[in-house]
Amino acid sequence: MISERMQKQIDFIVAIDKLKHITRQNVVIGTTRNENDAEHSWHLAVMAMLLSEYAAEKNIDILRVIKMVLIHDLVEIHAGDTFCYDEKGYEDKAEREQNAADRLFNILPHDQAQEIMELWREFEDMRTPEATFASCLDRFQPLLLNYNTDGHTWKRPGITSDKVLRRNDVTEKSAPIIYDYVKELIESSIEKGILKR
Amino acid sequence: MISERMQKQIDFIVAIDKLKHITRQNVVIGTTRNENDAEHSWHLAVMAMLLSEYAAEKNIDILRVIKMVLIHDLVEIHAGDTFCYDEKGYEDKAEREQNAADRLFNILPHDQAQEIMELWREFEDMRTPEATFASCLDRFQPLLLNYNTDGHTWKRPGITSDKVLRRNDVTEKSAPIIYDYVKELIESSIEKGILKR
Repeated sequence: MISERMQKQIDFIVAIDKLKHITRQNVVIGTTRNENDAEHSWHLAVMAMLLSEYAAEKNIDILRVIKMVLIHDLVEIHAGDTFCYDEKGYEDKAEREQNAADRLFNILPHDQAQEIMELWREFEDMRTPEATFASCLDRFQPLLLNYNTDGHTWKRPGITSDKVLRRNDVTEKSAPIIYDYVKELIESSIEKGILKR
Repeated sequence: MISERMQKQIDFIVAIDKLKHITRQNVVIGTTRNENDAEHSWHLAVMAMLLSEYAAEKNIDILRVIKMVLIHDLVEIHAGDTFCYDEKGYEDKAEREQNAADRLFNILPHDQAQEIMELWREFEDMRTPEATFASCLDRFQPLLLNYNTDGHTWKRPGITSDKVLRRNDVTEKSAPIIYDYVKELIESSIEKGILKR
């Protein structure tokens, strides 16, 4: 017979399958289909594997960065995706997401619920080198996708290059070489006419 | 200006976006939509975080397991998904996948191309505790999805419980407690009439 502990772990693994339903604002390259949070989280984890040499802080704990990006959007299963330029949506985002975290993570055995909660809080608080680097990837990946899909999300009213750059503020200190590239990409996007100055 | 090294890394990160197009045989829970390889890889990585206590080998390198599951299906971008019960497809699978690996991984700078190639070969060869545990997760995850989607993939002609169990052979030694659960799940599936004996 399966232990109570294992049953909780399996219940959680089945519950988070729903992350594959949560669509984001950007589309998958070469398609008109919105990316979902599971795909996005996978992409960030591979980026963490490959780009950690650009983290300003040396000896960053790459396993913790990967764990953080793998779980950082789970709360959206209950709280939904808040568009990063939606000021109204941001007003109650923190409360909605904390409730979602309590509800979802507590499916797990207590020790693991606590571990995931701490990883998620660390990511949200952006106070450790691992969390700021994870955040920088979380901003960089949609930028790469928008650049390669003719600025899909940037076509919305009110999206301008300064807002896109500001969204990548965390990268300036946490990964300056990536930040230089972000600025190049934004300039190139303006020149190509896929992002408003 | 971006370095040649970084350009190669970004080119690779953009190229592997295609993993989100590669559909698998099973569907996402609660939908009739086929899961794709990026979603599957993300799910495995979270499972690796949560289930490593069941690996027979203690002190398993969990970072290496996670890296392996994150990249294990990348070759399918060029080689396509081979259904695990398709005997004909398996005849030239190894050759197709090696060619795909050479083509895809070599977009990266040499040292990283080599790291990913080694991780992928380690996964395929199933000779280390990390690789067998990764393999066990790769078999367990579709079983969980099929169990929760009325045996979606098991409805195909010729799929029987002994084939499904045999597919999980690696789990018997690499994670015996998960293997016990696999057997329970298979029995329960037969009772529910969603898997043929």
